[in-house]
This record gives sequence, structure tokens and C-alpha cells, in this order.
Amino acid sequence: PLSAEMSDDWQPRDAVLPPAPDRTEHEVEIRVTETELEVAPGVRQSVWTFGGDVPGPVLRGKVGDVFTVTFVNDGTMGHGIDFHASSLAPDEPMRTINPGERLTYRFRAEKAGAWVYHCSTSPMLQHIGNGMYGAVIIDPPDLEPVDREYLLVQGELYLGEPGSADQVARMRAGEPDAWVFNGVAAGYAHAPLTAEVGERVRIWVVAAGPTSGTSFHIVGAQFDTVYKEGAYLVRRGDAGGAQALDLAVAQGGFVETVFPEAGSYPFVDHDMRHAENGARGFFTITE
Amino acid sequence: PLSAEMSDDWQPRDAVLPPAPDRTEHEVEIRVTETELEVAPGVRQSVWTFGGDVPGPVLRGKVGDVFTVTFVNDGTMGHGIDFHASSLAPDEPMRTINPGERLTYRFRAEKAGAWVYHCSTSPMLQHIGNGMYGAVIIDPPDLEPVDREYLLVQGELYLGEPGSADQVARMRAGEPDAWVFNGVAAGYAHAPLTAEVGERVRIWVVAAGPTSGTSFHIVGAQFDTVYKEGAYLVRRGDAGGAQALDLAVAQGGFVETVFPEAGSYPFVDHDMRHAENGARGFFTITE
Amino acid sequence: PLSAEMSDDWQPRDAVLPPAPDRTEHEVEIRVTETELEVAPGVRQSVWTFGGDVPGPVLRGKVGDVFTVTFVNDGTMGHGIDFHASSLAPDEPMRTINPGERLTYRFRAEKAGAWVYHCSTSPMLQHIGNGMYGAVIIDPPDLEPVDREYLLVQGELYLGEPGSADQVARMRAGEPDAWVFNGVAAGYAHAPLTAEVGERVRIWVVAAGPTSGTSFHIVGAQFDTVYKEGAYLVRRGDAGGAQALDLAVAQGGFVETVFPEAGSYPFVDHDMRHAENGARGFFTITE
Ligand SMILES: [Cu+2]
Ligand SMILES: [Cu+2]
Ligand SMILES: [Cu+2]
Ligand SMILES: [Cu+2]
Ligand SMILES: [Cu+2]
Ligand SMILES: [Cu+2]
Ligand code: NA
Ligand code: NA
Ligand code: NA
Ligand code: NA
Ligand code: NA
Ligand code: NA
Ligand SMILES: [Zn+2]
Ligand SMILES: [Zn+2]
Ligand SMILES: [Zn+2]
Ligand SMILES: [Zn+2]
Ligand SMILES: [Zn+2]
Ligand SMILES: [Zn+2]
Ligand SMILES: [Zn+2]
Ligand SMILES: [Zn+2]
Ligand SMILES: [Zn+2]
Repeated sequence: PLSAEMSDDWQPRDAVLPPAPDRTEHEVEIRVTETELEVAPGVRQSVWTFGGDVPGPVLRGKVGDVFTVTFVNDGTMGHGIDFHASSLAPDEPMRTINPGERLTYRFRAEKAGAWVYHCSTSPMLQHIGNGMYGAVIIDPPDLEPVDREYLLVQGELYLGEPGSADQVARMRAGEPDAWVFNGVAAGYAHAPLTAEVGERVRIWVVAAGPTSGTSFHIVGAQFDTVYKEGAYLVRRGDAGGAQALDLAVAQGGFVETVFPEAGSYPFVDHDMRHAENGARGFFTITE
Repeated sequence: PLSAEMSDDWQPRDAVLPPAPDRTEHEVEIRVTETELEVAPGVRQSVWTFGGDVPGPVLRGKVGDVFTVTFVNDGTMGHGIDFHASSLAPDEPMRTINPGERLTYRFRAEKAGAWVYHCSTSPMLQHIGNGMYGAVIIDPPDLEPVDREYLLVQGELYLGEPGSADQVARMRAGEPDAWVFNGVAAGYAHAPLTAEVGERVRIWVVAAGPTSGTSFHIVGAQFDTVYKEGAYLVRRGDAGGAQALDLAVAQGGFVETVFPEAGSYPFVDHDMRHAENGARGFFTITE
Repeated sequence: PLSAEMSDDWQPRDAVLPPAPDRTEHEVEIRVTETELEVAPGVRQSVWTFGGDVPGPVLRGKVGDVFTVTFVNDGTMGHGIDFHASSLAPDEPMRTINPGERLTYRFRAEKAGAWVYHCSTSPMLQHIGNGMYGAVIIDPPDLEPVDREYLLVQGELYLGEPGSADQVARMRAGEPDAWVFNGVAAGYAHAPLTAEVGERVRIWVVAAGPTSGTSFHIVGAQFDTVYKEGAYLVRRGDAGGAQALDLAVAQGGFVETVFPEAGSYPFVDHDMRHAENGARGFFTITE
């Protein structure tokens, strides 16, 4: 089924990560909606979303920037939001709000990193497992320029009626029906990411879970830069390189590579169960 | 059930980690007992223990210190002890001793770290899965002073008669009934850890398994210092911060944070199956 | 069963890792064969192999070396090969070739590390799960001399007819029958690795999966050097040490230790399910 075609009207989620806007104050509105999305070729699924898509909108800024998020619940049940990028008492900003309510969540980004956000309402296993997650990228001050930047948020897919006994049982067993990058199983196998030979490409990766991490790998490429959870592990000039970025649930980071020649380079979570069941895509590299 | 109340006579395990005593020789007696403990709200379980509690006693010292452990088997079956903090031939000190026997296990702490210890008797899956684990903390020489230190040892809970076919089957399947910090599912949700606004808090974390690691996270807080398996990954002055400390089974380390305001900050293993099933608690932060 | 004896004619896989040959061009032939091997005490299993054994042949060189691999398919179905040590477009060198065909896969090792290679043919879960994996070691330029070097490639074992519904179901469930070092469950429990007291021993570890990583530990020993995915995490002179090397699927690295006294030191994947089911062996240390 994952090798079937996506529907004609399917639009791939744009994985390009735009640079941080040139300002230090960010104002964002995030509306919860419960909707339906094509989450695998020909498979539509009811999802709970931040802003109508899975993952939710990407926020990006620099250390010291202030984010003012207007969070609105246009759904049918209580939801909340938890930004790992923030350092604050959860009590008020992360509280559950009812349908029709809104709250303002204001935070200053104290630390660089690739931070998860997700619904803060219990049971979080279900809220995250039904699509309520996203990423906030806070650039390290020394972040070197690259030619392209992508963001891949890895998540899990549990088919069926959200909150049904059957769906929840699979969540509780840690047995997703599929693993997804940016919300779609094998989505970027149908709509490959692109770059040119010799370009330096940075791929930000965030593992949203709710129950599995990732071992992110690009077939044919080596990572000469690895940044994980706020720290550089490998840098450009080093003799060593990495084949996989290992992230536990709720961790994030980035890798960099330069694709050496034209061709088609698969990327995967190298846990082969995850890859076979959706955690895969392609880079199409041209001259 | 995990949201029920603990029994009236339940006493939370003190998670405060006292400083290393001001001496270089440590003498400790550890007695194995098989007993019964409240391991989740209203749930009593037969456990095999080092010293009557799960986890066993915490040892703490400095690099170069010598530990002399008198290990006594007051149980009904063979047990042994394996200190990862020691560097020595396992043959004698880690041997299984019979009920009523004792042995002396002497070691010099050659290296800093957050080290697991556990029963050394086969099948270790069962001995660890029934409660036989603990931690030895050996301070790095440059360990900076902080305002509070806590230790959380993460483990697993398998309900039922220890060693019964049914319990062992769940161990072999890697399917615990719950995940625990310091032996109790959601224990620190009922007896929160505490700190004051602006204090620097260091949390040592050790993943005892026997089958799962952890992705340790504090909701609302960011880690500006991360030490894992003998190495600093993030330090105070760095631009980057971490949202989760990933430990595989039998790894340890610490994180540091400064809680920015009063409130209630949950902590979890961010694998949401683990969190939902017991791997959670709270920090209560006051002015 | 894992404590039974290996057959009389069983020959342990030599885990000694020879130094990189003193040349910069490496020519290697790797022939796929489908054969039968003793993969656990008294248990023979049909496997798909690179060169007749599991794991396949070890390649070792230095940064900048060029490898010319003649890859020949002497099997009965299509196979391919994917070297993580290479940086190149996968399209041609990693393509599936039919029985009787051959291809030449040429690459320059740009980066140091402990790199996985594996069959590139779909479904890779099955090709890796049936034995098609191995390691390429590219020495970092500053690699210090040691007294002994070993290589342990961790994999999984799925018994039964390769590709049968029953075997594939266990792969898809991520439920191996056993975990193996260098292809054999508990093999080095029957044929221990050796070293002398005071020698510095480097153990390279590669996690081939296809579905589980490792938390590699040696009972009684501490790692004073840890190199993971191209980066040193702990080095000889550091105050800190490590008890376990955590590798996600498709990661690699090495650890170093000096065994302090004569004796028998078990090594394990400290996930106790994995250890109990084959991921274990011994070092026999003599004066
Ligand atoms: Cu929600
Ligand atoms: Cu691969
Ligand atoms: Cu025991
Ligand atoms: Cu979170
Ligand atoms: Cu193959
Ligand atoms: Cu151990
Ligand atoms: Na979408
Ligand atoms: Na580099
Ligand atoms: Na890890
Ligand atoms: Na207790
Ligand atoms: Na820092
Ligand atoms: Na063999
Ligand atoms: Zn929600
Ligand atoms: Zn397509
Ligand atoms: Zn998985
Ligand atoms: Zn025991
Ligand atoms: Zn309570
Ligand atoms: Zn788990
Ligand atoms: Zn194959
Ligand atoms: Zn034997
Ligand atoms: Zn496992």
C-alpha cells in the first residue's frame, strides 16, 4: 500500500525550512482543528492538528527571540500546547483550554536547539499519536550558512477512529501502523526533496514519538556535521563522519552533508521496521 | 489506577542525593531481602531488594575513593552483586552467594560517572526486573556546586508472583506493567520533588532497565548542562540546551536546570508509553 | 538451548580485527551465497550471506583509501550492497543484480568511522534479517596504538525458512528469536575472546539491526575511551568513564579498556532481553 500513488490532489508538505525571520519578536496564531488528511498513499485519517496539518507550523528564531503564540482551540475537545523551546512554569501557558477558548503563550528562547512542541492535554499518548506535534528551531549563534535547509519531523501513525479502543490499544502497545516524516508515510518517496550536486544541505530532524525515536540516515551520504540536543558532535573539518543521527523520543538536532553526484538518495529511519512502514523518502540530486 | 492515592502509610523514597561524604574510604553493608513494597498507588508487590527498598542504597564518592561493601544474602535464593563503578575480575566479587552467606566486595572508583549496580545472578532479567538494582555516583573532579541534587533511577515493574511463568513471560516480551522512578509508578506525582525559583538543580538519572532506556525530560525546563556516561555534552555557558537526556539500558548521567518561576513542572520519560504507565512525577517550585 | 554446546565442527568467527593493510588501494571480491550456518548452539539456519559467513567480510582502511569491491551474486534471488562508508549516488553501485551477475562498487573513504554495510535489495528488513550485513572500519588519523582490537557486529536472528510468512511476521513485529554478536547467539560464551592483564583492548562495535540497537557493556570493565559515529566522547585521560556504548540501528564506534586482573569478564548488550537471548559472550583474561 505504501508503494501505491498518493491521490491526485495530494500536496506534499513543504519540507524546506526557511531562515529565521530578521526580527526578534515573533507573533504566531495556532488554531487547533480536527480534520482529515491523506497520511499514506490513498489513506485518509482523522487527525487532531495544530493549524490544520501534521506536524503543526514550524517556528524559527534565534537565541533571545521572543515568541507570542495565540493558541486557539477550534476543536471539539480540550487541548493545550507545550513548547520545549520555552523555559517557564507550565501551569498557565500549558493548561488545557476548552473548545472555543484561546490563550496567549509567550516565551523567550533561551537556548538553541531543535525543540519539540506537542499537545499538553492528557492522555498525551493519544494527543501526540493523533497528530498534535511540531517543531521550534532556535539557531545556534555560530550556525554556518548552507545552501539548503530541510526539516523532517518524525512521528507515528495510528489508523482508525481517534480515541477508539482499538486505536488506543495499538498506542498502548507501542505498535503504530506506520512511521511518518512530516505526517505522511513514504510521502517524500512520492515527492522527493531536492538539491544540487556540491550543495551543502542541512537536515533538521525532530523525533516527536510518541513512542519511538529514530536513527536517521541518508543512503549514499555521510554526515560531516552532527548537532544533537544543543551540542555539536561532529563538525565539518573533523576526520570522522556519521552515518546516523540517533534521537530518542522528544529529541532533535541536525545533520549536514554534501551530495557528491547526481542521483536518487533514499533517506530512512534505519530501524528497518520503521523504514519499511513509512519512515522513508528520497533526495533527488541534480547537476 | 496510577492516579489513585498512595496508601496512608506510604513513605516516598527520598530522591535527594546527599553530597559525597568527606572521606575516601566507604564501608557499606547491603543485605538482600525479599519483601513487599507499594510500587504503585494501592498496589503492593513482592520484590527482591538490596537493603529492603527499590532501588537499593545509593553510594556516592569521588574518583579514587575505595568502597568496601559487605554483601549479605538474607533472601531465600542465590543472589550476587555487580557494581559497574568497579573495575575488577567479576569471578569472585560478583559470584552468587547462597542464603545466609556473605561476601566482601572491595573496589576503588577509578572513573567518574553515574553507575548502575544490579544483581549478578542469572537470570538477570528476572533479578533486575524484580527490583535488584541501584546506583553509585562518582563525582567528576570539576563538579560545580549546585543548590540541590536529586537522583532518579528508572526501572520497570512486572506485577505478579516473582518468577512465575506469567511474570517472566512479560519480562521476556519486554512488556512491563509499569515504568518507575525510584521504584514507584507515579510516586513523585504524589510526593513531588521541590526546589525554589532560581536555584540550580542537578538531577542524576540512571536507567536500570532491564529492557528499556529513557528519554528524561522536565516539562517547562531546559537543561543547560548535560553529562552522560562520563562526558559533558552541554555546559552552562553554551548557547545550546537540551530537552531530553537519552539513556540506553545501564547508562547514567545528570542534567542541570534553573527553574525560572514558581509552579508545577512534570518530569517524564518522554516515551509516552513509559510516562503514561508510571515514568512521571512533579517538581513543585516555590518562590 | 543457548547454554547447550556448539557442534563439534563449529568454528567460532574470529573477532580479532587486523590492522588496516599498509596500502591505500583495496581490492575485494564479495560473493553472495545462500547457505546454512550454526547460528546458536546446535541450531542450523539458512542464511543469505556476503562471502559465506554472517557478518560478511570486514574491510579496514584509512581516510582517503580507495576500495574496489567486485560484488558477485552467486545466490538464487536478486541482491545488492550498500556501503555506508561510501559517499556516492546509490543508483548504480547499490542496484540489485540478478543471480549470476556482478558489479564493481568503487569508493573512496572520505570519513573515519565504524560503518555498516548491508544488502540494498528490498525488502531490506528481510535481507538484513537473514544475514546480509557487515562492517567497514575507517581509522581516524589519530588512532592510538593498542594491544588488541576486536570487532563485534551485533545482529538479530529469525529462525525458520527465510522469507516464510512466519519468519517475516516476526521481523515485522521486531521480535527476533535471538540477538547475535558476529552471527552466533552466545557464540563467544563458548569461544571467549582473550587478552592479558594490563593490555589495552579496543572493541569496535557495529549495530546492524535490522530493528534493534545495542547498549554494549563489559562486566567488570570500564571504558576509558568511547568513539561513536565519528566522534570521541570519552578519551583516555578524562576523569569520566563509560559503562555502555549506546548505538542505534546502523551506528558504530569503539570502546577501549584495560582489564585489571585475570578472570572471566562477560560482555553483553545490557538490554537484558537481548543478553539473555544471545547477545553475550566472554573475555578470558590471563596474566
Ligand atoms: Cu491535544
Ligand atoms: Cu543502510
Ligand atoms: Cu539477585
Ligand atoms: Cu514534551
Ligand atoms: Cu540482499
Ligand atoms: Cu550490568
Ligand atoms: Na500534509
Ligand atoms: Na566534520
Ligand atoms: Na542514544
Ligand atoms: Na519505596
Ligand atoms: Na550550557
Ligand atoms: Na560463523
Ligand atoms: Zn489535544
Ligand atoms: Zn508517487
Ligand atoms: Zn521501533
Ligand atoms: Zn538476585
Ligand atoms: Zn497523591
Ligand atoms: Zn519502551
Ligand atoms: Zn539480499
Ligand atoms: Zn562451549
Ligand atoms: Zn530490544
